[in-house]
Amino acid sequence: MSEAPAPVVVGAVLFPGFELLDVYGPLEMFGMLGERVRITMLAERPGPVSSHQGPSTMAEMALADARGPDVLLVPGGMGTRREVANSPFIDELRRQSGSARFVASVCTGSALLARAGVLDGRSATSNKRAFSWVASQGPRVRWIAQARWVEDGKFFTSSGVSAGMDMALGLIARMYDRETSIKIAQQAEYEWHQDKGWDPFAKLNGLT
Amino acid sequence: MSEAPAPVVVGAVLFPGFELLDVYGPLEMFGMLGERVRITMLAERPGPVSSHQGPSTMAEMALADARGPDVLLVPGGMGTRREVANSPFIDELRRQSGSARFVASVCTGSALLARAGVLDGRSATSNKRAFSWVASQGPRVRWIAQARWVEDGKFFTSSGVSAGMDMALGLIARMYDRETSIKIAQQAEYEWHQDKGWDPFAKLNGLT
Repeated sequence: MSEAPAPVVVGAVLFPGFELLDVYGPLEMFGMLGERVRITMLAERPGPVSSHQGPSTMAEMALADARGPDVLLVPGGMGTRREVANSPFIDELRRQSGSARFVASVCTGSALLARAGVLDGRSATSNKRAFSWVASQGPRVRWIAQARWVEDGKFFTSSGVSAGMDMALGLIARMYDRETSIKIAQQAEYEWHQDKGWDPFAKLNGLT
Repeated sequence: MSEAPAPVVVGAVLFPGFELLDVYGPLEMFGMLGERVRITMLAERPGPVSSHQGPSTMAEMALADARGPDVLLVPGGMGTRREVANSPFIDELRRQSGSARFVASVCTGSALLARAGVLDGRSATSNKRAFSWVASQGPRVRWIAQARWVEDGKFFTSSGVSAGMDMALGLIARMYDRETSIKIAQQAEYEWHQDKGWDPFAKLNGLT
């Protein structure tokens, strides 16, 4: 009997005021990998964490106790405005980013990674409506205004909210192959924007 | 001083094995209405409810105790296979559907509404990969195979998973106006499929 390989652990980071779709869009796509992944919800402390929109998700484990998820998913949301100044939280993000195989942020989640310093010297993007605030959190990051998502080594950063789904499929394509991502998109009845450069929202917000 | 109008209450129904994006795609769109809405999470019992993918959401209130949400949101997911036979749950769905101003389902959530009998004589759609199973739950429903979503009176039913976001924007357009939905889609950096008939997934699954 051959054993199945250990599942890839996707650790989603929660904080009060996280944006719902930033977390659950990518997790829907990763979840379609079935037994190939295990999703774990992390936060400063275990227990319910309320989103910006209201609903609370249960964090299973403290970020400080997590044993190196393979993929670290960092959402955005209004809560990032407070968390950029939360040093113990930012320190944990830096530590977990160091050991993760891939680090992915959605929307203003890249502001948290920028504050952790892990994007220094790298290309990254973010939400188009909060772009200048995010950019101010990481002066040594090469901020790309027009992009659905940006890949730089193991770091995947996406534009606002729904862009996280396209990025997650891009990351799955890197981890597995493009056919796997296309199949997942079809199962989710989702029209995947495969082109990382597709971004009508940059122009709409005066960034090009 | 004039008082702001009471917010529209969106009640999302949870059950073990719900599909993440079925719930959180629409809630992201409704959440963009800001103070015009209040989101409440309902289930058979209050407390954490685990999704098909793993993460648990806190249900704030028992469905039986909810005082008529204005919009009832019913997701799908593997858990529907069990819930169609859960009579007390189906009875509550019927009761809440009766008083709601709008009832919206995503994916196999329409199987639950069909079992509750509230779609009898109406047009509805569902997930394309589970279509025949869903249709078998409501022999008196006019099932539409090719549709992103279907509107029939106060009932909005959508196709699989990500179709719930397009339907939610369609419902918001009905409740407010199309401009409001377009603005929300732009804020979420989402490309809204405004055409209810857009559905490449029906053909892909041999339904046309």
